[in-house]
Amino acid sequence: MKSHKLTFILCLLILSCQSSRVNQTPEMDTVNKTDKTVIRKIFDEALTKGECYENLRSLCKDIGHRLSGSPQADQAVEWGKNLMQEMGLDNVFLQEVMVPHWERGKREEISIQLAAGEEKVSLPLCALGSSIGTPAEGITAEIIEVQNFDELAELGEEKVKGKIVFFNRPMNPKLINTFAAYGGCVNQRSQGASYAAKYGGVGALVRSMSLRHDDHPHTGVMWYNPKVSDKKVPGAAISTAAANQLSEMLKKNPKLEASLVMDCKNFPDKKSYNVIGELRGSEFPEEYIVVGGHLDSWDKGEGAHDDGAGVVHSLEVVRLFLSMGIKPKRTIRVVLFMNEENGAKGAAEYARVAKEKNENHLAALESDRGGFTPRGFTIDADSATILKVQSWKPLLVPYGLHDIIPGYAGVDIKPLKGQGVKLFGYLPDSQRYFDHHHADTDVFEAVNKRELELGAASMAAFIYLIDKYGL
Amino acid sequence: MKSHKLTFILCLLILSCQSSRVNQTPEMDTVNKTDKTVIRKIFDEALTKGECYENLRSLCKDIGHRLSGSPQADQAVEWGKNLMQEMGLDNVFLQEVMVPHWERGKREEISIQLAAGEEKVSLPLCALGSSIGTPAEGITAEIIEVQNFDELAELGEEKVKGKIVFFNRPMNPKLINTFAAYGGCVNQRSQGASYAAKYGGVGALVRSMSLRHDDHPHTGVMWYNPKVSDKKVPGAAISTAAANQLSEMLKKNPKLEASLVMDCKNFPDKKSYNVIGELRGSEFPEEYIVVGGHLDSWDKGEGAHDDGAGVVHSLEVVRLFLSMGIKPKRTIRVVLFMNEENGAKGAAEYARVAKEKNENHLAALESDRGGFTPRGFTIDADSATILKVQSWKPLLVPYGLHDIIPGYAGVDIKPLKGQGVKLFGYLPDSQRYFDHHHADTDVFEAVNKRELELGAASMAAFIYLIDKYGL
Repeated sequence: MKSHKLTFILCLLILSCQSSRVNQTPEMDTVNKTDKTVIRKIFDEALTKGECYENLRSLCKDIGHRLSGSPQADQAVEWGKNLMQEMGLDNVFLQEVMVPHWERGKREEISIQLAAGEEKVSLPLCALGSSIGTPAEGITAEIIEVQNFDELAELGEEKVKGKIVFFNRPMNPKLINTFAAYGGCVNQRSQGASYAAKYGGVGALVRSMSLRHDDHPHTGVMWYNPKVSDKKVPGAAISTAAANQLSEMLKKNPKLEASLVMDCKNFPDKKSYNVIGELRGSEFPEEYIVVGGHLDSWDKGEGAHDDGAGVVHSLEVVRLFLSMGIKPKRTIRVVLFMNEENGAKGAAEYARVAKEKNENHLAALESDRGGFTPRGFTIDADSATILKVQSWKPLLVPYGLHDIIPGYAGVDIKPLKGQGVKLFGYLPDSQRYFDHHHADTDVFEAVNKRELELGAASMAAFIYLIDKYGL
Repeated sequence: MKSHKLTFILCLLILSCQSSRVNQTPEMDTVNKTDKTVIRKIFDEALTKGECYENLRSLCKDIGHRLSGSPQADQAVEWGKNLMQEMGLDNVFLQEVMVPHWERGKREEISIQLAAGEEKVSLPLCALGSSIGTPAEGITAEIIEVQNFDELAELGEEKVKGKIVFFNRPMNPKLINTFAAYGGCVNQRSQGASYAAKYGGVGALVRSMSLRHDDHPHTGVMWYNPKVSDKKVPGAAISTAAANQLSEMLKKNPKLEASLVMDCKNFPDKKSYNVIGELRGSEFPEEYIVVGGHLDSWDKGEGAHDDGAGVVHSLEVVRLFLSMGIKPKRTIRVVLFMNEENGAKGAAEYARVAKEKNENHLAALESDRGGFTPRGFTIDADSATILKVQSWKPLLVPYGLHDIIPGYAGVDIKPLKGQGVKLFGYLPDSQRYFDHHHADTDVFEAVNKRELELGAASMAAFIYLIDKYGL
């Protein structure tokens, strides 16, 4: 009997595990069919009468890139507000926020003197956002190549002083998730200039954050970290192909001199806006679910994947609800955040006001990983929420949404975390993202219509479930 | 006690289910770690030292498109053989096969007379493979639009006779799997001309099989079905944008006349080859695992996704094994099939010879769905095999391979099914495939390096597991 008893206890344990698994979503059994039908209709509508692709075309082609503080950013604010009003959202308003204002200026170039008397070689280069410019006559200095800050520290002031520091650590191609590869080397872009300055360097040159081997330099934000150095020196990116080329040149001639000219400049902060529109909830109008992307972009390409896609995804979620007559219980608030790229001031302001007004935010979903084919959602919340959301997988998997996983949600919604808001990120396939990110290649043509539409439908389905079942 | 007994039985049932589930892969528990490590290394190697992308560049740029019977197809055979020999495969040989030989010729155009005296409007058009040409002076006739064969039958000879039949059924955008959408309307391309002829039509014009709205006509195979009609009339595709435009024109003027000129022509069959190379098995050299794609392509674009990707995927599988020192137990045979596009003669010949020689084929894996980001594998085999292969999911999911599902494997390996061979298809994301399929847009530049490499690594991992555990 003993072994029987043991088996019995074991069985009970298994049964209880199983039943607790089921209990994560007691609703699922009864409502599965309705949900399945609604979600199918959401996808049908997005794939046959979707408007996100044409909205993206308008944002990219009528306005183009739209860096904070630029006239195009102002146009984008108007564009977003008008579109929300045309869509018939309940409550469209602008939320004022002061944003950094940096301009690239006319000249940005680097030329290398390979040998005395020879013609200089020019490399594809672009200034990094927030960088100071060079003096008008430029900087001429030797280049010293490093992979990371430790290597730089080892070289020390003696070998670095007076030189342009060339950070050439490539993104790790072995990482399947390209965002992890980005995370593994973005610090050379964001703080390379401060570290160069710390050891007496006169400028920072950074390998573009891309897994492609091509001639397009990728910009992105940098900042001067006073904890590292009080001095400010210019920072710029060169294309991945140019980085390889330069590295080869340096192997042949470590004394190579470069002339760097950059006209970029920081200006006083400018007034701008988050653009907000609502679909009022029928049962709990004071409970908010945010869905958003960021309206600003870098001043390269057209900001199509980053983050035009997130903007039109978010707008499409409420347009789908409206056109299908889905009346959410809670208020769905579309937020087009300003200034994600170089300051995230819009994100901070949105969270500040939400706290000030004591608004009850249930959840926030951000799309800022491009308009690629759907893979899933990231969850930045407690484990009960993770389990609950994962229990919706059978409804999402038919649309390629397998990865319902804990993970970072997004820059713009992150400040809401302190208020207990449950955060989610739309997770498309990441393989092609850094081919386009912050470069001239981030154009409307790089976005596939169906992949974009599937993303919008995925987000709408997800918001539908959050609204229906709560968290 | 009764309920206890019942619970007990129920528990045993659950336990036995659980244990039987575990039993599907008794090896998994012990070998999981080794497999995990090997598969990780396969991906590392493919993503850092992969050669499939440069091989694809060579196939697309040095040779280009390569329709059966063309000089480029001959070049591709040489290319494949040379590459296999350079790679050091054990047994490289050509398998002779007679293939259809069709040529597009110089002229293929359609022009529409919108109104008497007005200039004719020309639409982007291309002949369908195997189609006869028009007389030298072309065909001038009214156009009649239908969606399908039933509609055509209803119109009958009275309304169809002497007209060019315009089949305008679009691919269904609601289907998440675009191959299902393709399957839903490809018969108008493959047999539209025969059905047009049946009712006295003088030609068939077909909406391109694509979900994109653009100006590129997509070719593809058609055939004259003697069971439908003894008569042969020309068949051609127009771009999706042209199809919409023509449909609008016809609404305004149903008597619209078109002039169709096509110089295409069928020639006698030509000699060609399947290209075959082996990595001999260490334990069971007489047991074969086939991995392949097709070497021929349509005479449009560069046959990059269709099926240059499958060719270089398959070659990369054995290259990875060789470079990593993976010694398969069974013989891995790479087969670059000839003539998938318009006859599948290579596929038939390979299966015929395999049967004739009484070769023992364990499995065959085909890649013919493009070089896109991995989603999984299809399985065309018995349910025990399906369960066994699905039990490998934990090893495959980290690479995005979630869809290990029953389904069609591929045209080239299908004839092996009669010999009991277990068939598998590499399943990449399908959203962009029909943007390129059989059109001028199917070029090397449309293939993303990482997506291609991930596909090759996925296939290598899959073959590694099949070889190791058998089926």
